[in-house]
Amino acid sequence: MGGDHGPHVTVPSAVEHLQHDTETNIILVGKPEIVTKELDKLKVSPNPRLRLHPASEVVGMDEHPAIALRNKKDSSMRVAIKLVKKGEAQACISAGNTGALLATSRFVLKTIPGIDRPALAVILPTISGHTYVLDLGANVNCTAEHLFQFGMMGAALVASIENKPNPSIGLLNIGEEEIKGNDVVKQAAELFRSSDLNFYGNIEGDDIYRGTTNVVVCDGFVGNVALKTSEGLAQMLASYLREEFKQSLFTRLAGLVALPVINAFRRRVDHRQYNGASLLGLRGVVIKSHGSADSHAFRCAIKRAVEEVRGGTLRNIVEHIETLQQNIAQPASVE
Amino acid sequence: MGGDHGPHVTVPSAVEHLQHDTETNIILVGKPEIVTKELDKLKVSPNPRLRLHPASEVVGMDEHPAIALRNKKDSSMRVAIKLVKKGEAQACISAGNTGALLATSRFVLKTIPGIDRPALAVILPTISGHTYVLDLGANVNCTAEHLFQFGMMGAALVASIENKPNPSIGLLNIGEEEIKGNDVVKQAAELFRSSDLNFYGNIEGDDIYRGTTNVVVCDGFVGNVALKTSEGLAQMLASYLREEFKQSLFTRLAGLVALPVINAFRRRVDHRQYNGASLLGLRGVVIKSHGSADSHAFRCAIKRAVEEVRGGTLRNIVEHIETLQQNIAQPASVE
Repeated sequence: MGGDHGPHVTVPSAVEHLQHDTETNIILVGKPEIVTKELDKLKVSPNPRLRLHPASEVVGMDEHPAIALRNKKDSSMRVAIKLVKKGEAQACISAGNTGALLATSRFVLKTIPGIDRPALAVILPTISGHTYVLDLGANVNCTAEHLFQFGMMGAALVASIENKPNPSIGLLNIGEEEIKGNDVVKQAAELFRSSDLNFYGNIEGDDIYRGTTNVVVCDGFVGNVALKTSEGLAQMLASYLREEFKQSLFTRLAGLVALPVINAFRRRVDHRQYNGASLLGLRGVVIKSHGSADSHAFRCAIKRAVEEVRGGTLRNIVEHIETLQQNIAQPASVE
Repeated sequence: MGGDHGPHVTVPSAVEHLQHDTETNIILVGKPEIVTKELDKLKVSPNPRLRLHPASEVVGMDEHPAIALRNKKDSSMRVAIKLVKKGEAQACISAGNTGALLATSRFVLKTIPGIDRPALAVILPTISGHTYVLDLGANVNCTAEHLFQFGMMGAALVASIENKPNPSIGLLNIGEEEIKGNDVVKQAAELFRSSDLNFYGNIEGDDIYRGTTNVVVCDGFVGNVALKTSEGLAQMLASYLREEFKQSLFTRLAGLVALPVINAFRRRVDHRQYNGASLLGLRGVVIKSHGSADSHAFRCAIKRAVEEVRGGTLRNIVEHIETLQQNIAQPASVE
């Protein structure tokens, strides 16, 4: 029910996904009358792989997470997460209030042993492929141990989805040298160095899009700023390019000639294909879609969930953490 | 003498600047034999506005700042800063080791009363103009008071250079709501709100390039990551665009037709024009050029220094802070 556009986007996305993926079942959780109305609009014939599960409440996009958690026990978000908890669904996908999704997922599903806090991981494009960045905003006050746990989870995610057994991990910092950075980052680097993880070392902001490492670890404040700054820059550059092509009759004609190239470029940088952040560290798969996602973007988030379930990401994270914890150096030694 | 290219870049930039700006004098500080050799290469006739001041040492780009500060008392960097201290120069411009420049400037010049730490401010382009962002990496562990001081200094910088008496200040955060962010940012917002500054409120990463505010305040870790991430994204997008134009004979022809437009676009986003970060909060003007600056970029840093001196930025910051401190709420009340 959530997101800026609600069932108007999520219902058509689900229906379309089922047309292309014949092995998935989708449960639409929300107010029956509204969901049914959307289904009627689409004129879909009954599909045994698509069913409705009622929930009487909706968490508002600006609602305080703690208040939503306390008061809305029958919200579509909470009911969907409970279906994961009960094993009736393998994943929950939501475009709703991020804070409420985090708080409710954590409350209902609990974290995996060895993980203090769930983290939001996204895929970002790089010059030659893509990379996984976490945390993107779930945790704003992180300790070195939290950052280390993000690294473990990111590595497990990449290992299971990309079939890369030993992905490289970079720690986002303001210089490559060991002396650089704030105290938390320096301590986190020590934890990574004394672990069995494939730790590349410190990386800088430009290494994200260079694809220097498979996983980029940072606290949620820094990660969120990096992501949003990227969105802003991309919008500005697109606006500049449009303006330059509108300067004169000649540039407009040049724009027409170059249109197929510009369109190919736009498809390549279309951020919608990266929609769907994985909420890692929970005893269940939860995917957060961008609140403003359109139907194409929301389908990408559904695909992300399917990939995680098929790749066995959850089991992989649990196993990774068990193995690492057996070998881990005592954190006390680096503080 | 500093930077990745040394006097090979800085000396020609200085000579060229003097050809276009007939009211400025430049003192080249460094090893006389090396600087003279560069001058000879350029075949410049003696110019009373260009003189050489000897310094026998050079701080290495990877040298530890504290060690450079302790051991290299006759480095070109330190001698240049001392010329500012003595009033023989109105500004120091360096492409050298950032950490050493910060440490040496602070040691030699000292900070302005009311300022605990100097901050690095850069100009970044926005959709409709430009904005000033600080700190860009001088301070990685900041308190709320530090962030507040950055805001005061940024406002004074914009007021003096842009002739905007009351520039708007945004606090970089991960959401606009007051409840968002880490503790330091929340406390800093309180300080801004209880001051006479034109505080816009919390802004997000995309607001930087949207130009939502004239000044963007953040700690040096976050600012550095945002800047470097932007550099990486811009490089990736440029690389994608090149690749798309190389796909086929048709796209190559389209590229030829669109070349004037693409070149205009490239000139507009050329980061060299934004080279020159102001080190604010010191009792003297110090400008940090990017280490990899070419001669065009280094000239932009020289221009930045001239603008600051002509705009009376230093005096403006001192006055701003005096006025604000008379009106400031007790910091104790918000902690």
